[in-house]
Amino acid sequence: MKLLVINPNISDEVTALIEAEARRSAAPGTELLIRTAGRGVEYIETRLESLIAAGAVAEIIAEHHGEVDGIVVAAFGDPGLPALKELADVPVLGITEAALCAAALQGRQFSIIAISDRITAWYRDCVEHFGFSSRLASIRSINQALRGIGTVQQDFKATLLELARTAVDQDGADAVILAGAPLAGLARELKDQIPVPVVDGIGAGIRLAEAVVGLDGGSHRVGSFAAPPAKRRAGLSPALEGCLDGLQDAAHRTGPAALAAGGAR
Amino acid sequence: MKLLVINPNISDEVTALIEAEARRSAAPGTELLIRTAGRGVEYIETRLESLIAAGAVAEIIAEHHGEVDGIVVAAFGDPGLPALKELADVPVLGITEAALCAAALQGRQFSIIAISDRITAWYRDCVEHFGFSSRLASIRSINQALRGIGTVQQDFKATLLELARTAVDQDGADAVILAGAPLAGLARELKDQIPVPVVDGIGAGIRLAEAVVGLDGGSHRVGSFAAPPAKRRAGLSPALEGCLDGLQDAAHRTGPAALAAGGAR
Amino acid sequence: MKLLVINPNISDEVTALIEAEARRSAAPGTELLIRTAGRGVEYIETRLESLIAAGAVAEIIAEHHGEVDGIVVAAFGDPGLPALKELADVPVLGITEAALCAAALQGRQFSIIAISDRITAWYRDCVEHFGFSSRLASIRSINQALRGIGTVQQDFKATLLELARTAVDQDGADAVILAGAPLAGLARELKDQIPVPVVDGIGAGIRLAEAVVGLDGGSHRVGSFAAPPAKRRAGLSPALEGCLDGLQDAAHRTGPAALAAGGAR
Amino acid sequence: MKLLVINPNISDEVTALIEAEARRSAAPGTELLIRTAGRGVEYIETRLESLIAAGAVAEIIAEHHGEVDGIVVAAFGDPGLPALKELADVPVLGITEAALCAAALQGRQFSIIAISDRITAWYRDCVEHFGFSSRLASIRSINQALRGIGTVQQDFKATLLELARTAVDQDGADAVILAGAPLAGLARELKDQIPVPVVDGIGAGIRLAEAVVGLDGGSHRVGSFAAPPAKRRAGLSPALEGCLDGLQDAAHRTGPAALAAGGAR
Amino acid sequence: MKLLVINPNISDEVTALIEAEARRSAAPGTELLIRTAGRGVEYIETRLESLIAAGAVAEIIAEHHGEVDGIVVAAFGDPGLPALKELADVPVLGITEAALCAAALQGRQFSIIAISDRITAWYRDCVEHFGFSSRLASIRSINQALRGIGTVQQDFKATLLELARTAVDQDGADAVILAGAPLAGLARELKDQIPVPVVDGIGAGIRLAEAVVGLDGGSHRVGSFAAPPAKRRAGLSPALEGCLDGLQDAAHRTGPAALAAGGAR
Amino acid sequence: MKLLVINPNISDEVTALIEAEARRSAAPGTELLIRTAGRGVEYIETRLESLIAAGAVAEIIAEHHGEVDGIVVAAFGDPGLPALKELADVPVLGITEAALCAAALQGRQFSIIAISDRITAWYRDCVEHFGFSSRLASIRSINQALRGIGTVQQDFKATLLELARTAVDQDGADAVILAGAPLAGLARELKDQIPVPVVDGIGAGIRLAEAVVGLDGGSHRVGSFAAPPAKRRAGLSPALEGCLDGLQDAAHRTGPAALAAGGAR
Repeated sequence: MKLLVINPNISDEVTALIEAEARRSAAPGTELLIRTAGRGVEYIETRLESLIAAGAVAEIIAEHHGEVDGIVVAAFGDPGLPALKELADVPVLGITEAALCAAALQGRQFSIIAISDRITAWYRDCVEHFGFSSRLASIRSINQALRGIGTVQQDFKATLLELARTAVDQDGADAVILAGAPLAGLARELKDQIPVPVVDGIGAGIRLAEAVVGLDGGSHRVGSFAAPPAKRRAGLSPALEGCLDGLQDAAHRTGPAALAAGGAR
Repeated sequence: MKLLVINPNISDEVTALIEAEARRSAAPGTELLIRTAGRGVEYIETRLESLIAAGAVAEIIAEHHGEVDGIVVAAFGDPGLPALKELADVPVLGITEAALCAAALQGRQFSIIAISDRITAWYRDCVEHFGFSSRLASIRSINQALRGIGTVQQDFKATLLELARTAVDQDGADAVILAGAPLAGLARELKDQIPVPVVDGIGAGIRLAEAVVGLDGGSHRVGSFAAPPAKRRAGLSPALEGCLDGLQDAAHRTGPAALAAGGAR
Repeated sequence: MKLLVINPNISDEVTALIEAEARRSAAPGTELLIRTAGRGVEYIETRLESLIAAGAVAEIIAEHHGEVDGIVVAAFGDPGLPALKELADVPVLGITEAALCAAALQGRQFSIIAISDRITAWYRDCVEHFGFSSRLASIRSINQALRGIGTVQQDFKATLLELARTAVDQDGADAVILAGAPLAGLARELKDQIPVPVVDGIGAGIRLAEAVVGLDGGSHRVGSFAAPPAKRRAGLSPALEGCLDGLQDAAHRTGPAALAAGGAR
Repeated sequence: MKLLVINPNISDEVTALIEAEARRSAAPGTELLIRTAGRGVEYIETRLESLIAAGAVAEIIAEHHGEVDGIVVAAFGDPGLPALKELADVPVLGITEAALCAAALQGRQFSIIAISDRITAWYRDCVEHFGFSSRLASIRSINQALRGIGTVQQDFKATLLELARTAVDQDGADAVILAGAPLAGLARELKDQIPVPVVDGIGAGIRLAEAVVGLDGGSHRVGSFAAPPAKRRAGLSPALEGCLDGLQDAAHRTGPAALAAGGAR
Repeated sequence: MKLLVINPNISDEVTALIEAEARRSAAPGTELLIRTAGRGVEYIETRLESLIAAGAVAEIIAEHHGEVDGIVVAAFGDPGLPALKELADVPVLGITEAALCAAALQGRQFSIIAISDRITAWYRDCVEHFGFSSRLASIRSINQALRGIGTVQQDFKATLLELARTAVDQDGADAVILAGAPLAGLARELKDQIPVPVVDGIGAGIRLAEAVVGLDGGSHRVGSFAAPPAKRRAGLSPALEGCLDGLQDAAHRTGPAALAAGGAR
Repeated sequence: MKLLVINPNISDEVTALIEAEARRSAAPGTELLIRTAGRGVEYIETRLESLIAAGAVAEIIAEHHGEVDGIVVAAFGDPGLPALKELADVPVLGITEAALCAAALQGRQFSIIAISDRITAWYRDCVEHFGFSSRLASIRSINQALRGIGTVQQDFKATLLELARTAVDQDGADAVILAGAPLAGLARELKDQIPVPVVDGIGAGIRLAEAVVGLDGGSHRVGSFAAPPAKRRAGLSPALEGCLDGLQDAAHRTGPAALAAGGAR
């Protein structure tokens, strides 16, 4: 199984953190292709930054059309999701949705620990969009300026631990998500000091992607995540043009009409 | 008052429909600047197409930074909203959110009449995101291939009328939204034949933008719609770079610290 | 355009505040007819007081049947809404629903600043009824006895500002509504000191009423806001009798049967 | 125990049906005082008619201030509720809320069978307001003109039975509410032919009122259902004036201040 | 009327408290059969303990099949509900659902006062399952070790009173539920010191069971609470086997087929 | 990794189906221990049958305390969940929650295909409890008598395929869950004929259990899924007694007090 793991942030330091945890988490047979967004911001904290990142992630998905078995969008907040699920005929998972599932499977209420106050509104939107507002115990966040995005997890380790414990003690969290690619790998370090299951976003993204790809349940040939209908387009990158052409051709071959005529996937 | 009205679709025919209804709807003192997306698809039906359009709309907003008093994103489904509200220090409204408000102020339950089956999932997401799932009576849509996007409203007038009436009779709609820029202006034509208030998306967008701009309640200097925090960026267009720099400079001058020090907007 | 603006409270001082802000907010071509409730209480704080006021508002609407293009019920909490929408064939808006729309179009989460603790339960019902519970950041209120309803906004200006700022800082409000007719006009004064958009209930009521009336999308000839069916009545005021007769006659002429027979509005 | 049972409709025929079922349902020791609205309409189908009725019900409650141990508002849709709970220091129950509880205690999903299509929107509002939208299987209604409100249950017995059975078979109702005072007593007649528990609104209203009154848990001395605060009033009926005075005097004697000083109820 | 009242806890002291309050609450004509769980824990605080108790309660219900007119499961949290409603052809009520109804009929928002922190998550599940999350003001609980389950209400009377008052003052509770069988009877003692209606779980359970049994609306012959379909079973107790056989025989005689053939209950 | 997979039904045929699909789905390094409920019914369709099964599953979990790394409860509807998560210090997953996650990660709306009409109410409860009501497109079910539980998937293959396709075409499902252990393995056979991703409950259960166990985020040492507090117990099986003793001892060694004193897991 080959997974494309995309850092929607432009920071190579964060990519390195993602890669390290992804490799620790992946099953023996899983091959990882790690990519960094070609444009955007150092780290995403707002809805607009997420929108900008989504465009960059779309390009990378398009460039690798047909090359991989699954795709992980490796920024908490899931830039471009669920829209980007239309851009591939393989599963595309965000690490937020993966982490939310991992937490929900281990508890009733869960909390999210985040790297900045500003980031929390966007995270809250994601949880609500996923349908889990009633299961969110709290989002707690660092409210100090960061020294550098690559060192957040070390610079604020004590703060993050304290936030996690407070989420458990005061907010009733049955599980805690250490959110955001910059925190990749920290869960391994802190889990013995946090008295409920701790979820690492990257770890959850990789493992749940492996699970969903492994289920091999078929792709979206109709419905709201099938390839967009063919129509006049303008101004898109060659990669995106090529990917959309490829998806629309496949849809033509395997879609409802073909299905009715006895065609298979 | 000067409003920037953006067609997120690349179709000039649709822009013409938008412009005609926008001019009919605007108050005497309102100046309109109408723009068409520089890249994207002929008409948006899916979450991915909406995401692509959002990027194009962002460029146009950035290009006109500081020039207008309000912005209307003129495709039903509100591509890029609410993220794009961060990209301007003036109100940015989508025609969906405007139409939902106009409908909600005139009825308890409302229905949306849409130009294609595929488009409905995306619309449903928008309604849910806005918080109005419990007020949505139904989304009803044309389930035939379109002849051309600029003539949908004339080609399918009888079908659209029938869908609207069915929404009233069978789904209990107290108001009906004729959704999508390609239907701009049709409400004027059909309203006498539909026995509940009919909402035109473009008309609602223009009029509610005028109302909100007119309220003049101040901009987002803090919170989740304030300008994104300054940080390293890469690969963005000059327009976007300039706009973000401008917003962040203003935030520096008028934000919380300035506010505490007695600064004003 | 002619709007009937009704103060559901019996206080002339509050009517004066409403009138001043309504005139400041109205478009050049808008004519305003301002009326005060003929019976009820000095200012409404509870569900029962709102119910009593609703009856008084109904009388005023009935008295002006056929004279105006739109109606604004100018007490936060929207006494009698949505029921009173049945009593006119023109749009009837409450200032709460208008303010909620204005806030929702400018932010994701919003807070309401209220003049007394007792009033908050009723306001919360309104927000929930409108469908926006998930978007309400908080309701914050003055918890001191009022000196006089006409001077609340001046007597408690510093408190109200503090409540608004706290809603932004601690509750995550992206927009703030200064609720209640007694606060009419205060938003203009405080907006530079509150770092997110501020909504004045009266201003929102007038401007959104202008927008909805301007849309001119037709009236309720069927459905749950059409005129009540004709049936035996007793004990109603002549005004109410006359208004209901008028509405039912019109419904007979333009309703479903007439519509089917080719009749128009 | 003495219960005041109020028919918010002006129809004496409906009062007779209410009285008959109320007497059959009441416990041996329960004394019933039955009253009919002094103004309003023959039978309530709309939000506006309910608002008008609410005023009439308020007068009757006020007239009997201090005379009874509990009050039942005997029209489905609960005119004036929950506001009217402020107007008495004894429990005030609507038959809708009582029937919803009776149904919810006997099933997961329930349906409501109603006498007209027009009435359903108002009923739906009530269910939503109570918090039971997720438990409502359906509202099914007679869609023919009624011959007379006093004979609906006999004129449409077969139709009502069919609607109830369809709600069970097709909508998954675990319990069925025969809604509306005009159907009072019909549940006894049809229950053997409907294969899930059937709830009579009047029966539920009487029995749950007896239960709640019997619990004798104390009245609202603070909070959103306490007597409205004393303030200037105008134009109210002597009964309402007297009742409000009485409630406010009692609040003064037993409220928070008195409580702190050691006062008891 | 004969009610079976089951203590799902194994503690005889708690059974004594239940019995005392049940006898005080029951109507003159109500006969009570009080039983204690044959296996389980001293007092239930967790979802697992509730599940274990549910099995024990099922046995007792089965043993008394056909002997009673209604059943009250007398532990807050409603162990085994709603599943156990399938195990009898008479109403089966939990004291939580009964107390929630009693509170909802007396207020808009209510709070629950609980005997331990651990117990609150389970209670919250129950409220959510019933559909009343939006009406729950708070759950407040004793966070100290208990001296003995039979003396909690006396050992912590001051604490419980303080929690109830705080729920009213700070959380906006319009009614307060003193939750849990170990608190049975305490509401009578504290109600004069709590300024909103107080609900005793046992009192509510008995009185609402009397009300629902009294309604006599018929049993579940089809639908999701009818007797489980006959099929191969293994390892069940003789009581459970006998009860299921009895229910399935009755279903065969009175179910849909019999109904269609003219059979009656 | 060693997983305990429990069939809560007593049917060995169904266990064989579960085992076959579990072995096909499991990763190379995963060891499976397959067990069948010692008491209960042939196949679970109702809430009561699920409750009975939950007790039997608890016994099996207790018997294997300390022997495995994760547990899969292999009946759709998740008998005993989430309560049974308290009974182990390793992850306990139900196949419903696993399948819901797998579907939600592949679509926005999903449908469930079920083996009988009776079973749907219980499934709906599960989806609602998980928080995904807003994402459920439909539950569609076979409404014919089954010939035998072990052959359902072959006897009704065409019907099941038709139900799945209808869910896609008419209900808007983006993904389809073939629910229930008796359908284990069928997804592999039908996926090419269903034009959206298909989820096999057993496959999802095994793969998501592997993912969650692999995350190794620590166990519940505090909170609502920690071991129940030690207290007097009676009448439990030796296995359950031993398991609870074991969990409570561990909690004593590693819980909050131990944690504060520097203890680790």
